[in-house]
Amino acid sequence: MNVRRIFKVLGYVLIVEAIFMLFPLIVSLIYKEFVNVKAFGISIGVLLVFGFILANIPLKRKNFFLKEGLAVAGLSWIVISLFGAIPFMISGAIPNFIDAFFETVSGFTTTGASVISNVEGVSKGILFWRALTHFMGGMGILVFLLAFLPNSDSNSIHIYSAESTGTKASKVASKLKNATLYLYLIYIGLTILESVLLCFDMPVFDAICHALSTAGTGGFSTFNNSIAGQSAYVQVVITVFMFIFGINFSLYYLLLFGKAKEVFKSEELRVFVIIVIVAILGVTIPLLSVYENFGKAFRYGAFQVLSLISTTGFFSAEFTVWPSLCLGILFIVMFIGSMGGSTGGGIKVSRVCIAYKMAIRDFKKTIRPNKVSLIKFDGRVIEEGEERGVRVFIILYFIILLISTLLLSVFGGNIETNLTSSLSMLSNVGPAFGEIGFSGYYGLLPAPSKIILCFDMLIGRLEILPILVMIAPSAWRFK
Amino acid sequence: MNVRRIFKVLGYVLIVEAIFMLFPLIVSLIYKEFVNVKAFGISIGVLLVFGFILANIPLKRKNFFLKEGLAVAGLSWIVISLFGAIPFMISGAIPNFIDAFFETVSGFTTTGASVISNVEGVSKGILFWRALTHFMGGMGILVFLLAFLPNSDSNSIHIYSAESTGTKASKVASKLKNATLYLYLIYIGLTILESVLLCFDMPVFDAICHALSTAGTGGFSTFNNSIAGQSAYVQVVITVFMFIFGINFSLYYLLLFGKAKEVFKSEELRVFVIIVIVAILGVTIPLLSVYENFGKAFRYGAFQVLSLISTTGFFSAEFTVWPSLCLGILFIVMFIGSMGGSTGGGIKVSRVCIAYKMAIRDFKKTIRPNKVSLIKFDGRVIEEGEERGVRVFIILYFIILLISTLLLSVFGGNIETNLTSSLSMLSNVGPAFGEIGFSGYYGLLPAPSKIILCFDMLIGRLEILPILVMIAPSAWRFK
Repeated sequence: MNVRRIFKVLGYVLIVEAIFMLFPLIVSLIYKEFVNVKAFGISIGVLLVFGFILANIPLKRKNFFLKEGLAVAGLSWIVISLFGAIPFMISGAIPNFIDAFFETVSGFTTTGASVISNVEGVSKGILFWRALTHFMGGMGILVFLLAFLPNSDSNSIHIYSAESTGTKASKVASKLKNATLYLYLIYIGLTILESVLLCFDMPVFDAICHALSTAGTGGFSTFNNSIAGQSAYVQVVITVFMFIFGINFSLYYLLLFGKAKEVFKSEELRVFVIIVIVAILGVTIPLLSVYENFGKAFRYGAFQVLSLISTTGFFSAEFTVWPSLCLGILFIVMFIGSMGGSTGGGIKVSRVCIAYKMAIRDFKKTIRPNKVSLIKFDGRVIEEGEERGVRVFIILYFIILLISTLLLSVFGGNIETNLTSSLSMLSNVGPAFGEIGFSGYYGLLPAPSKIILCFDMLIGRLEILPILVMIAPSAWRFK
Repeated sequence: MNVRRIFKVLGYVLIVEAIFMLFPLIVSLIYKEFVNVKAFGISIGVLLVFGFILANIPLKRKNFFLKEGLAVAGLSWIVISLFGAIPFMISGAIPNFIDAFFETVSGFTTTGASVISNVEGVSKGILFWRALTHFMGGMGILVFLLAFLPNSDSNSIHIYSAESTGTKASKVASKLKNATLYLYLIYIGLTILESVLLCFDMPVFDAICHALSTAGTGGFSTFNNSIAGQSAYVQVVITVFMFIFGINFSLYYLLLFGKAKEVFKSEELRVFVIIVIVAILGVTIPLLSVYENFGKAFRYGAFQVLSLISTTGFFSAEFTVWPSLCLGILFIVMFIGSMGGSTGGGIKVSRVCIAYKMAIRDFKKTIRPNKVSLIKFDGRVIEEGEERGVRVFIILYFIILLISTLLLSVFGGNIETNLTSSLSMLSNVGPAFGEIGFSGYYGLLPAPSKIILCFDMLIGRLEILPILVMIAPSAWRFK
């Protein structure tokens, strides 16, 4: 493992975090929140000092492979969460370290689980920082580095693949440097568009915060009852954008370069749209017994399905009291999650599709062992290595889900609570069933449970491997 | 598909069921329950008529392959459950057809879920039939055919592998005819041994019924509160036998033929024992806060762990109110289940081991793609086909679990209830968490939910493939 090179990248990451923190500093100045100005000022100072020290470590070797890419992704996310917690603590918004760390991890991993019960009592600068962590985490801070810094080289592909979501099929591999820059610009553009649309029926500050939160498919709101108190217009705009941010960004890239035909050929998109439609109908129909008319049932149903499949986690109604079938569908949708290459979490549509095709192929082969059949997805034959990747992911996903459920139960909670909150964290959703409920408020859990959930969130966002490599001793042997 | 041959086998199966039904007929005569004598008499008559008609179908071709083996297993189990429900209905014990079918499927699949709330009010003949269905289902009625009927040929291996449990590693393949006979004799011997041991502190009738129920790892009791009202001696005997019947029967076969050394080399046994010990300790320690001393906590903990890992489903305490950690462990143990080649259900220890090794191997390969490493289990290299089988099984297991949870939620129940009762049925356990609870009483569910659960039980007992082949149109093309 090339430890020096890893530390150097961490240095750049901290400097980027310092730059991002200028935004909440400016917000604090605008709203004259001087406690926050101090909090962000100190945090930026600390980040820059550590950042420059690490960035100036002299390199002995240049080698940087997949292993290093995975380790740097895992470490970066822990480090930015540790430093990102500082403003919460200094400002007094969340004085307790574990709580502040939980909130920051939840922010960066775009989960949206919170330890703050009354967000309306929190200052604007801090609310903005919360929303901004979603935005930063959505596309990834390392991907930001690749897009905007001049020093990336051919090895950077390993960082990109460690931090971006989905299977190989979903990733933009060619002309990496250019591609990530465009992806980021599309991301920023869509966020601005949503902010503007929300401004028509929301204060500017809230509009921007909710746009940042939707963009990262996070779920932090500036209101105590999330989107439930907002107008139908706001709810519809957010519903549409949760769908937009659940789609693979490389499809927007293709669209931008006039390759609309290829977009419509995307099998993952087709399946995603079908799942969304089926789930919305499946939730809307039983909801007719709850809401007076189809329009309202459809609006609430569509909002919640898209909120959970995109793994955003906003709510527009107390959905945990809906009929059982709705909850069953929402539960499954939380497993599937959004498309690979989007800012959303979950197992991802591409993996679910490939796993489904693998299961069918293997099932047929069990009956007729001599039949050879290749798996195709998105018009490509899936190779052995990619198949293996999907398999490892899904098996590890369930193993981690079970272990987390078990560990949580050491500190209390029933199976429904522990299982659904583990799943919610692994899929980076936020709300859960049982004692946690639709609001995604985790403040009452004991500290060890919060730490377990932090690991779940990081494992979920980084799609398992980086965190496992980071904690596997064999990966760190110095050679 | 050789449909004539399949029907012929079904005919033999019905005749065997008629022979088994003579036992509850005798019990009914002994206790002078003449309603039951009539019920079993009529049922035997019906079975024999249908049996002889089907058994005398003239064959056109002799071909009988894996596909036919799977289909015949799936069909047999549905047919014996349909006919096995007749005595419940005629005797008036369970007049409703869906309920009687549920009870019979639960019996044959050795699940032990019941629609009877007051078993102490049920007549002896019927209670005996319930317990006997567990015994018949445990080892398998087709395996019984292979063991005791003279007409089995080399193709019978396909029937055997369709009905017996676990991976290829767990099965006795060589000298099939002889092996199945010995396996059945061992099974009968152990059941008699348990009956005798239980007789010392239980009425003979109850001793035999509980021995039959333990042997099949079923869970039907003749008492309303299962084993909770019994002496410590009875609880310990049953605990030990639940362990014994959770072990691969071919190990007893080896032991019988003086190959004790090979038994101790069994990796699956070693892992099973370790899981049992870890789970018992993990349940016992938190139980110290519930029971006054270690001995009692250990006795209740060991009983419940073995009841759920062997998928028997007896209870000696209201375990659903135990501390969360206990419930978490019991929940996971319900997934794993017992050893392949035993009468227990679940995913099976061998599959869990192979899946674990596959995951580790694949994980390593993801980091270092060029490394070649084979998976060994029980001293053998696992071939591609077997790996595929394990993969298909586990993926389908989870998919079916999710689908079942979703379907159940159409008819009510919360996620905890629907998920854990689906799992309980798929693993052939009986009790669940949530609204069903430790007693495994399913009588209050709506009829469609009961039918869904019947499918889960059959899929679980036959390890998925036979039921899928049976309902896959492509398998039935007449060629």
